[in-house]
Amino acid sequence: MEKSYVVGIDIGGQTAKIGVVDMRGNVLAQSAIRSNDTTDHEEFITKLCTAVTELVNKSLSIDQIRGIGIGAPNGNYYKGTIENAVNLTWGGNATSIPFAELMSEQIGVPVKLTNDANAAAVGEMTYGVARGMKNFIMITLGTGVGSGIVIDGHVLYGHDGFAGELGHVTMVRNNGRICGCGKTGCLESYASATGVARTARELIETTDKKSLLRNIPAENITSKDVFEAAQQDDELAKDIFDFTGKMLGEAFADFVAFSSPEAIILFGGLTKSGDLIMKPIVESLNHNLMPLWKGKVKVLFSQLKESDAAILGASALAWEL
Amino acid sequence: MEKSYVVGIDIGGQTAKIGVVDMRGNVLAQSAIRSNDTTDHEEFITKLCTAVTELVNKSLSIDQIRGIGIGAPNGNYYKGTIENAVNLTWGGNATSIPFAELMSEQIGVPVKLTNDANAAAVGEMTYGVARGMKNFIMITLGTGVGSGIVIDGHVLYGHDGFAGELGHVTMVRNNGRICGCGKTGCLESYASATGVARTARELIETTDKKSLLRNIPAENITSKDVFEAAQQDDELAKDIFDFTGKMLGEAFADFVAFSSPEAIILFGGLTKSGDLIMKPIVESLNHNLMPLWKGKVKVLFSQLKESDAAILGASALAWEL
Repeated sequence: MEKSYVVGIDIGGQTAKIGVVDMRGNVLAQSAIRSNDTTDHEEFITKLCTAVTELVNKSLSIDQIRGIGIGAPNGNYYKGTIENAVNLTWGGNATSIPFAELMSEQIGVPVKLTNDANAAAVGEMTYGVARGMKNFIMITLGTGVGSGIVIDGHVLYGHDGFAGELGHVTMVRNNGRICGCGKTGCLESYASATGVARTARELIETTDKKSLLRNIPAENITSKDVFEAAQQDDELAKDIFDFTGKMLGEAFADFVAFSSPEAIILFGGLTKSGDLIMKPIVESLNHNLMPLWKGKVKVLFSQLKESDAAILGASALAWEL
Repeated sequence: MEKSYVVGIDIGGQTAKIGVVDMRGNVLAQSAIRSNDTTDHEEFITKLCTAVTELVNKSLSIDQIRGIGIGAPNGNYYKGTIENAVNLTWGGNATSIPFAELMSEQIGVPVKLTNDANAAAVGEMTYGVARGMKNFIMITLGTGVGSGIVIDGHVLYGHDGFAGELGHVTMVRNNGRICGCGKTGCLESYASATGVARTARELIETTDKKSLLRNIPAENITSKDVFEAAQQDDELAKDIFDFTGKMLGEAFADFVAFSSPEAIILFGGLTKSGDLIMKPIVESLNHNLMPLWKGKVKVLFSQLKESDAAILGASALAWEL
């Protein structure tokens, strides 16, 4: 039987999204399962295989699937492993999970795996706002902060397959926030969705500013609450976005000094806040860039549906199989 | 006549070094001229052409030269220009000097140009300690801090030819030192030879520690003085190296998060201080790396003679012509 379809899977901290994709990049069918209801990776793989088989069987058979591509936090392209993935309930304790191999054995289809942000970068380059770009950086602002770096049209994997951990550059060198990775002061601990919520709790405690956010029990505040308050012109909520955007712009200026990309493309939940986050980012970026780059580096939102970029990018891996 | 020789030129803030190189990478003849005795780039180019011609004519004729490769601060590989080079007496005021074109017209030989640190990286990859490495970062610790980044065996130029300005990532975000590039808090303003001298002046003023360095008029202290004092076990001088190495290690950890190199290779005047700078770098790097990289990234000194790496790397450009 001709194998003219692939499956793309985007594994995030809370859900795993699955898509069946044809050769033109159409997502023919989609589903999702929870990724955080077990601490056992074998249990999760079994659940994922079942979900993939069910989705495929709705309109095709598993024999028609050429391969499965997966984007996952701390996914290693060279080894097919997920390593030290502290944002996954089943990923932190095991040093190295041979995920691609285990899944392939169970489902009987070849599996290729990469970092979730790298997968999103490939999706963006193939189908999104980065079409035609050879040098860009994809930043995912979700539960964590991820990155996929494209150099001369290729995803940067580095010596060991782990290049592009830009969520873990150090932004605050003294008394920085504790990060899930074990370090302190990482960009991710400030500029992720959870970082935004932490900033909210901090500013509520350390300032007297009136705010709608004070009506919510501090431990329950989410980045969505901050967004909704900012939309109602809440000053404190807007301060939180300014603080977050300023730090992202500072970090981006350093990234530009590294690889001089044509654009930085933002992706993930926080981008829904639009100008609230974009304006301070662009202002801070241009303030911190070397003169030769000021005003020259684009900052763009992904134009792919959030789930699609990662699924499509992951599926692109499967065509290589 | 067969054109089986090239010329490599390394333009630095104080001198320009010229070498005639054969196909095996032997430097057959070398000379140097001052690069900081004029503010007029045309005057400098004329002087450089004369020096190249004189050197070549000692044993060959200019007809035997296939091309000239140049490494220069802020050199642009794509355009052959030197842009906003604040460390060159004749480079800061002119926004963009079409150096390769002007020199080629005058000397009648094709000229190709790149960033001085990129040239050093090519030299190191071809003839030095990075032989066989596909992913490494070259850091030059001289008058300034430069960088050449190698990804999958190729120098990273980025979208516009200016990638690899790692001397200008921001290390101190509040009250950072003013940098020659117009920003504040740049790595270069702390970890270059001039940065080390600035640190010495600062620590002499802000501490009471006894030190040999107090015998030198503050404005005359150089990084060489600091090195010589440290060799005599001067505590303040050793503090200066610890401070410098700590900051370099912090910066390197962020660079690793970007491109995950096999090694970081150090080059330039400051590396003469050996363990005094290497020990705090390695300690700080491993302290700041994400767990997955701790202890795994090599930090090495260049093993090429200082002048050779840049000349050889620049000469490698000329073979492409």
